[in-house]
Amino acid sequence: MSKTSGVLMDLGRSPHARLRPVPLTAVEFADGVWAPRRATIREETIREQLVQCEKTGRIDNFRRASGRREIADHQGLVFNDSDVYKALEAAGYALMEGVSPELEELIEAVIDEIAAAQQPDGYLNTAFMFNRASARYTNLTQEHEFYCYGHMIQAAIAHRRGTGRDTFFDVAIRVAEHLVATFGPGKRDATDGHEEIEMALAELYRETDERKYLDLAIDFLDQRGKNPSVIPDRPRRREREYYQDHLPVREQSEVVGHAVRAMYMTTGMTDVILEGEDAAMEAALHRLWDNTYSRKAYVTGALGARYEGEAFGDNYELPNERAYAETCAAIGAVFWNWRMLARYGDAKYADAMETALFNSVISGISLDGQGYFYMNPLASPGGYARDSWFECSCCPPNVARLLMSLPGYAYSTDDDGLWVHLYVSGSVAADLGERGRLAMSVDTEYPWDGAIRLKLAEAPGGPTTLALRIPAWADTAELLVNGEPAGVEVVPGSYARITREWAAGDAVSLELPMRARRVRSHPRVLNNRGHVALARGPIVYCVEEADHADVDVYDLGLPPDATIASHHEADLLGGVTVLEAEGVELNGKPTNLYQEQPFAALGATGSTPLKAIPYFVWANRGAGKMRVWIPEA
Amino acid sequence: MSKTSGVLMDLGRSPHARLRPVPLTAVEFADGVWAPRRATIREETIREQLVQCEKTGRIDNFRRASGRREIADHQGLVFNDSDVYKALEAAGYALMEGVSPELEELIEAVIDEIAAAQQPDGYLNTAFMFNRASARYTNLTQEHEFYCYGHMIQAAIAHRRGTGRDTFFDVAIRVAEHLVATFGPGKRDATDGHEEIEMALAELYRETDERKYLDLAIDFLDQRGKNPSVIPDRPRRREREYYQDHLPVREQSEVVGHAVRAMYMTTGMTDVILEGEDAAMEAALHRLWDNTYSRKAYVTGALGARYEGEAFGDNYELPNERAYAETCAAIGAVFWNWRMLARYGDAKYADAMETALFNSVISGISLDGQGYFYMNPLASPGGYARDSWFECSCCPPNVARLLMSLPGYAYSTDDDGLWVHLYVSGSVAADLGERGRLAMSVDTEYPWDGAIRLKLAEAPGGPTTLALRIPAWADTAELLVNGEPAGVEVVPGSYARITREWAAGDAVSLELPMRARRVRSHPRVLNNRGHVALARGPIVYCVEEADHADVDVYDLGLPPDATIASHHEADLLGGVTVLEAEGVELNGKPTNLYQEQPFAALGATGSTPLKAIPYFVWANRGAGKMRVWIPEA
Repeated sequence: MSKTSGVLMDLGRSPHARLRPVPLTAVEFADGVWAPRRATIREETIREQLVQCEKTGRIDNFRRASGRREIADHQGLVFNDSDVYKALEAAGYALMEGVSPELEELIEAVIDEIAAAQQPDGYLNTAFMFNRASARYTNLTQEHEFYCYGHMIQAAIAHRRGTGRDTFFDVAIRVAEHLVATFGPGKRDATDGHEEIEMALAELYRETDERKYLDLAIDFLDQRGKNPSVIPDRPRRREREYYQDHLPVREQSEVVGHAVRAMYMTTGMTDVILEGEDAAMEAALHRLWDNTYSRKAYVTGALGARYEGEAFGDNYELPNERAYAETCAAIGAVFWNWRMLARYGDAKYADAMETALFNSVISGISLDGQGYFYMNPLASPGGYARDSWFECSCCPPNVARLLMSLPGYAYSTDDDGLWVHLYVSGSVAADLGERGRLAMSVDTEYPWDGAIRLKLAEAPGGPTTLALRIPAWADTAELLVNGEPAGVEVVPGSYARITREWAAGDAVSLELPMRARRVRSHPRVLNNRGHVALARGPIVYCVEEADHADVDVYDLGLPPDATIASHHEADLLGGVTVLEAEGVELNGKPTNLYQEQPFAALGATGSTPLKAIPYFVWANRGAGKMRVWIPEA
Repeated sequence: MSKTSGVLMDLGRSPHARLRPVPLTAVEFADGVWAPRRATIREETIREQLVQCEKTGRIDNFRRASGRREIADHQGLVFNDSDVYKALEAAGYALMEGVSPELEELIEAVIDEIAAAQQPDGYLNTAFMFNRASARYTNLTQEHEFYCYGHMIQAAIAHRRGTGRDTFFDVAIRVAEHLVATFGPGKRDATDGHEEIEMALAELYRETDERKYLDLAIDFLDQRGKNPSVIPDRPRRREREYYQDHLPVREQSEVVGHAVRAMYMTTGMTDVILEGEDAAMEAALHRLWDNTYSRKAYVTGALGARYEGEAFGDNYELPNERAYAETCAAIGAVFWNWRMLARYGDAKYADAMETALFNSVISGISLDGQGYFYMNPLASPGGYARDSWFECSCCPPNVARLLMSLPGYAYSTDDDGLWVHLYVSGSVAADLGERGRLAMSVDTEYPWDGAIRLKLAEAPGGPTTLALRIPAWADTAELLVNGEPAGVEVVPGSYARITREWAAGDAVSLELPMRARRVRSHPRVLNNRGHVALARGPIVYCVEEADHADVDVYDLGLPPDATIASHHEADLLGGVTVLEAEGVELNGKPTNLYQEQPFAALGATGSTPLKAIPYFVWANRGAGKMRVWIPEA
């Protein structure tokens, strides 16, 4: 096995990384939210996604390209190769944990089809073969060739780190060499309308120590925003904002255009500042992050307000029913915040990552692991349900690869010790270098309960810091070591740092306050005026038709003084904590659309029970009405 | 001249028309809103639009089709022929009033190019010639061949009625004969994804008395909603709702999909019920109208909430900044309401028509007649301005043809007398058959002033009814005849009917109340909660950056008890009545996007003058910020 076996990102030698990775293989998840979803993905979803790729011609496209099968034309969208790669990336992480021999055989067979399709010059994109060979690299804005390469490189790295084998990795290296030979300074100026290649090349640099890959990633970023554009979008006449080509990346201040592209751009930019000094890039990233999270993020962490262009809207443009909120954009936000966290160690990035994970990433997959949301609206008039696959099926394998790699996001190390970002029941065994190992169990019902018990099974030598994230909402968190107050600062929105000589058997107890919160929107989010969203811990709630037989959830209001109770329902939706209150039924049925007299509608017509469930499990009991924002009335 | 000279629609013999037309040529407009705009269109805009059609290759497309000019390929969008036809339809109405010899020569020259392009079998669409001839009628869902024919037929009828010449009309007849020979029962089942041909064929039936044209219009409506679809939309995979093919037209209850298409469908359906009994079609029209105006219309009368698909949204989905509100959809609503009015004589249709005309149709054209809005949002963060032309330039000639024909919408006759729908200074001289003529002057500053003075210049013989529309907002209208109370019911939202023996010199005085009104939205229009729109008479107002140097109009609030004053500014924006109040500046600048504590933002930080201008003249003083809905705070 290679030295980077089991690692999600090899930040160990990244000069500007404040945090270093803990391998996925050193982390165990045994909780009630992530562990069952990850088991389903490892045992069923990856296979099913590869089968879908077979059924829909995605794998035949490789066979056609290699000549192994006679097929008249490429099938499906031009970037369909990427879905195969993403499913294989999920497989790479699954292989770190071990999969069935049958699945491993299937994975290797698909990789073999891919390898066979590679052209002598390293080129590999099944949509641009034979009849379309002359169209290679002619419409990078929309036809996503580098984007597909990016996914292939990421998948190949994950596969190598999961198996120690180079069968897929060698293909990726040939692609990367082909790119280096074709593009970059002194060669052809180009970049992809859909960012992705940048983060892949940065990780390939980390994997190989070949500086040229990082340089090409930087060059691809540098090509954006030139006049004239290096990727003019003639056929569809999109605005250059759509693909973040309106300004040089270091001059951007507002997240605009296609939300997934924008997130993959900022992720790639953050990969660059982890590897080298670039003050202008850093400043742009801070501006973009502030704009995202103070103007354009949904309370669920979802991103992308507009259907048109799958795009960010204007500042404060956050419609609920028509939220685009693509699952992939929330996943992109996790990638970005993870890298910002690694760079700066600021808890706000971990908070943003956790909000997205619990609310707009796993909302994207059904409880049975068979259905996916592409859009994650914050209200539904009914009729919206998860699908098993899409023509443009970017989201399903994206969820799979993120959740399979999730243990890699829970912990970090630095020179002082271990950081805990996500509280997930299970264990971790982190290598702290000369200090030895810090192994501990994590016992918690989080996110349903705020009690988190850590117990050291193996202690490092010498004074070592355990840095525990205190979420911004945890205004009364308490921290004990072996039953005594920890005696350290416990500030919401930061890491509490306990530095001491640890011994096996030491117990750390963190108590996070789990009262239900009423969350309000900035008044410029017009459609949320007078409304509150309910949250408890990191979980955002919604009211769903399935729990409200007697009242239309669109007519449900919450009095300002209503007490909100919570209790756990082990048999509901895989086991969730629900919120309950005495709500009111609003008179939502006047006839006129407009009138001079005030509508009586916001007046309550009677009290009615209000029950809220975690947003992420909605639409698992039929495609009923749903609302996150509830009128306070 | 033909017997239908000067008529907009020849409803004189339509068996189910309650109202009959008054020719455009019998109406004079001398007011301050319509007359100057119509003069600009007649004297400048029509020529400029034909010049634009020349510059952009639209007329060359005809020359290419006829072989008069060697051009390699069709230029522009496949339905660009329709823009030429719409400009020519405007020209047809202008010719009723008379145009300069130079313009008339240009009009005839363009018609000559069109006639020369017609194929021996009657086919005429410049996008499907030579290299694309085999694609004729292969993608009716998106390529609009019948739609183009519809515009041609309407233009040809207007041209014939304006000139008495058949040069254009004969081309249209050949097209219609080609359609009748090719499509319909026993021939090919088809219909167009973009409705328009139906209303054109219905009017052609009225013009020619050839029943086959009406039958084909009915058949084209009957083809919608079949399973399988007669117009499957394979290439773009739109939902069938997008083009109103989801249900048979008589089973539809909700306006859905592309708003212009939906309006042209309902217009065509109403043409059908004017000509024959069809109870199911009538019932569907009532359901669709109720749905439109109780769930999906903007306060400006604009229609179409979504950019995506230029479409209606869900019920109550009425975003303001992202309102699509296409000018053509408001024009389509005028067409539809006009026909519903002709069918039923119910004032609500005239009200809806007037609201659209004053607020979402003329907003589409700038004061100088040179700029057009495609979208008519109800709020703008700035930067949105009218353009002189568009790649898809449906709106500019659509505004031109509607405004040129507008005198045809102001009056009707029936067996009892004359109906007045629109109050426009000027005159009318209506033929009341055996009773003779009723000619009268109209003296009013409406919509700025509510005093309307009618004076009979010529009186019909025998008891005759003058039916005057009392708008729904006119809750205290007063009606006098020769200075005495008229002694008839004056009910808002109906026609007041004065029946008497009239004499030349008789004076009728209608006084409509013109106080400023605060209009509220149904509470399900979430983004308007807590907001009011200001209206006065038929005019909807907005606050615009140009009038608010010291406060961001996005921070402008209106206290619930503020007095709203109005005064006329003759030098402002062509002469408009403005509204003024003591507003408040709201604190709209908190930092957080979400927080648990209530935002203080809706609290006023100080008083500030608020000045509102008619919505339709916004963006004539730069592309500043604008809002129709103002927080009441």
